[in-house]
Amino acid sequence: MRNDTITAPQGFRAAGVACGIKQSANLDVGLLVADQVCSAAAVFTQNRFCGAPVTVGREHVRSGRLRAIVVNSGCSNVATGRRGTADARAMCRQVAAGLGIAATEVLPSSTGVIGEFLPMEKLSRGIQAALKALSPSAAAGRRFVHAIMTTDTKVKQACERVRLGRARVTVAGCCKGSGMIAPNMATMLGYLTTDAKLPAGELKRLLAGAVEPTFNRVTVDECQSTSDTVAILASGAAAALVSKRQVTAFASALEAVCASLAYQIAADGEGATRVLEITVRGARTPSDAHAAARAIAVSPLVKTAVHGGDPNWGRIVQALGATDVRFEPQRVTVWLDRTVIFTQGAPARHLDRRRLAGLMRRPHVPIAVDLGAGRAADRVLTCDLSREYVTINADYHT
Amino acid sequence: MRNDTITAPQGFRAAGVACGIKQSANLDVGLLVADQVCSAAAVFTQNRFCGAPVTVGREHVRSGRLRAIVVNSGCSNVATGRRGTADARAMCRQVAAGLGIAATEVLPSSTGVIGEFLPMEKLSRGIQAALKALSPSAAAGRRFVHAIMTTDTKVKQACERVRLGRARVTVAGCCKGSGMIAPNMATMLGYLTTDAKLPAGELKRLLAGAVEPTFNRVTVDECQSTSDTVAILASGAAAALVSKRQVTAFASALEAVCASLAYQIAADGEGATRVLEITVRGARTPSDAHAAARAIAVSPLVKTAVHGGDPNWGRIVQALGATDVRFEPQRVTVWLDRTVIFTQGAPARHLDRRRLAGLMRRPHVPIAVDLGAGRAADRVLTCDLSREYVTINADYHT
Repeated sequence: MRNDTITAPQGFRAAGVACGIKQSANLDVGLLVADQVCSAAAVFTQNRFCGAPVTVGREHVRSGRLRAIVVNSGCSNVATGRRGTADARAMCRQVAAGLGIAATEVLPSSTGVIGEFLPMEKLSRGIQAALKALSPSAAAGRRFVHAIMTTDTKVKQACERVRLGRARVTVAGCCKGSGMIAPNMATMLGYLTTDAKLPAGELKRLLAGAVEPTFNRVTVDECQSTSDTVAILASGAAAALVSKRQVTAFASALEAVCASLAYQIAADGEGATRVLEITVRGARTPSDAHAAARAIAVSPLVKTAVHGGDPNWGRIVQALGATDVRFEPQRVTVWLDRTVIFTQGAPARHLDRRRLAGLMRRPHVPIAVDLGAGRAADRVLTCDLSREYVTINADYHT
Repeated sequence: MRNDTITAPQGFRAAGVACGIKQSANLDVGLLVADQVCSAAAVFTQNRFCGAPVTVGREHVRSGRLRAIVVNSGCSNVATGRRGTADARAMCRQVAAGLGIAATEVLPSSTGVIGEFLPMEKLSRGIQAALKALSPSAAAGRRFVHAIMTTDTKVKQACERVRLGRARVTVAGCCKGSGMIAPNMATMLGYLTTDAKLPAGELKRLLAGAVEPTFNRVTVDECQSTSDTVAILASGAAAALVSKRQVTAFASALEAVCASLAYQIAADGEGATRVLEITVRGARTPSDAHAAARAIAVSPLVKTAVHGGDPNWGRIVQALGATDVRFEPQRVTVWLDRTVIFTQGAPARHLDRRRLAGLMRRPHVPIAVDLGAGRAADRVLTCDLSREYVTINADYHT
């Protein structure tokens, strides 16, 4: 079977082990290591109560060079003060010592319960085991992604292969995240690998460009996590990107990987049973388009209506009407899939409610709005809001 | 038994009847009539897709004089185009004809399903019956409030009596609202009566002042309704407010009535099992204080944590951290009731989790935050987020 995990690009090994941080005995330490120093870039949460690993990660990625990523799940090392920062540095030091590299070449991440200290003895044993288990196999890539999961119910990974002249370049990624998902950023933890060769500055620009329409356009509960990190490592083992055309092809592949991962996050939103794709066009400005799409995507009334399979256009226009977005109510048109459900200030005539309810119950529910005010457009992904979301969040101590 | 309904102030009669708009056969037409023309004021939703009754109500209250309020539940007459506006006017005309007054002296309201036309024959029979049933009794006041309910599980009313020199003035109010509750406005429909005498301009100013810290500080699901209306009628039957002291005493009573009603809305939020009172102090500006309190109050993660009885300060600081409010994370202190749970960037030491969980399970959960950045404060009321909220909103077609 073809390897479509984060070890698919040449020059990467991974591991996932269980060290007992999670009471479930599931995998909870992941390690990703490149054979050579990589060009690297990362984007982090903008939440001001960010976790210790984010603080340390920001420092380490500044050079644009990384060799390894170490992640644990089960404990987020957030709001843990100086001891937390020291623990994040210790994680990096141990990995660096095992690999014979500098600690600043390691990016640390932690996800899980907030406000508790990392159990460093367990974690240290886990890192030791992960160092020994490193492998370029697909199985190792899968164990890595399992090791970063918390409330996720599904593994989230994606892989794209592009031909650049004679060479073949691979971009792969995996992520975790199902609650506390909102722009900006969408995912709690996401890791991308590629065997393309390109400078760190270019990589940073391409990463930012890929994150904006993907991870920054998915919301589960509009709650911004304190740990969000998306990092990319480029090993350069396959081919260098030299022409503008090659960079464009690579950028498309990178965005496709991010888009796939973002979609998987929406589909695995806590308690989600279906994905809502909210498209807004005809807005005066891009920011109006974004605000309108987001207002609909975050509305609990829209999300519960979709959960109930109820083609309730009233809640869609209600959400729009509460924004500052510029439009004339009379010029707004709303579609469910390809059916106009609201136009000229009133519900469309002759609606077949049963057919519309059927569309609402599909796994992918596209809602489109034309504001009739301009030419800008945007798109936001979200999921329905279910009883299960409440159950998960009332009972899980983060 | 003392009359504490909206007919408690002198000079008002009310009625509530069932005309079959609600399939449940519950009361669905309410009528409130003053013996004399009243000074009147009202505040309405700012949602741009407002209902036809709001459009007509805005016109009618502009004169500052009203004599009657007619309300139906079960059908909101929102997004119904010209026919909807004509129907709202017809409601007013029928009431006016029955009372021998001008149609512009009647404020219309409708609440319930969006996008369907009012069943005017049923409604007309209902208004006819309500005109005949008008009474100043407490029973009539109670029937009025029952007639305006939709997903409410509890009757919401409040009454305050103040002595102004020799005279006694009464302020009473009732409201409906449990979902689609957010600033501004908090309540879908709220009606206030008083037998104080004061000019419409003054009444408008006092109403705005009472609504701001009460109805505009309660949120259930941060969804702004298309029908929100709060109106006050002052019959003047008891006493005129002449001195500044009297106006102040009246304003306090009015705010107390609004505060009680706002609290009742939070407590009866869809699926609510407890009320969260979020107080923020130490903010640089009042708008920072408001933004911080609101960010916590609308967080589904905070609301589900409270539902689960989980003293999860991590979610409180996460919600704060995602705002633009100015503060230093290290200077933030968070209290649950009177216990410090987070301070100096980390959880407080020696927390008794079991005791804190007990505090979280009380019907009233006070969460206080000191931002350590200034002297401004604000307060927002909300409720927990339960499975029941989802059930109500996935199954109820608005």
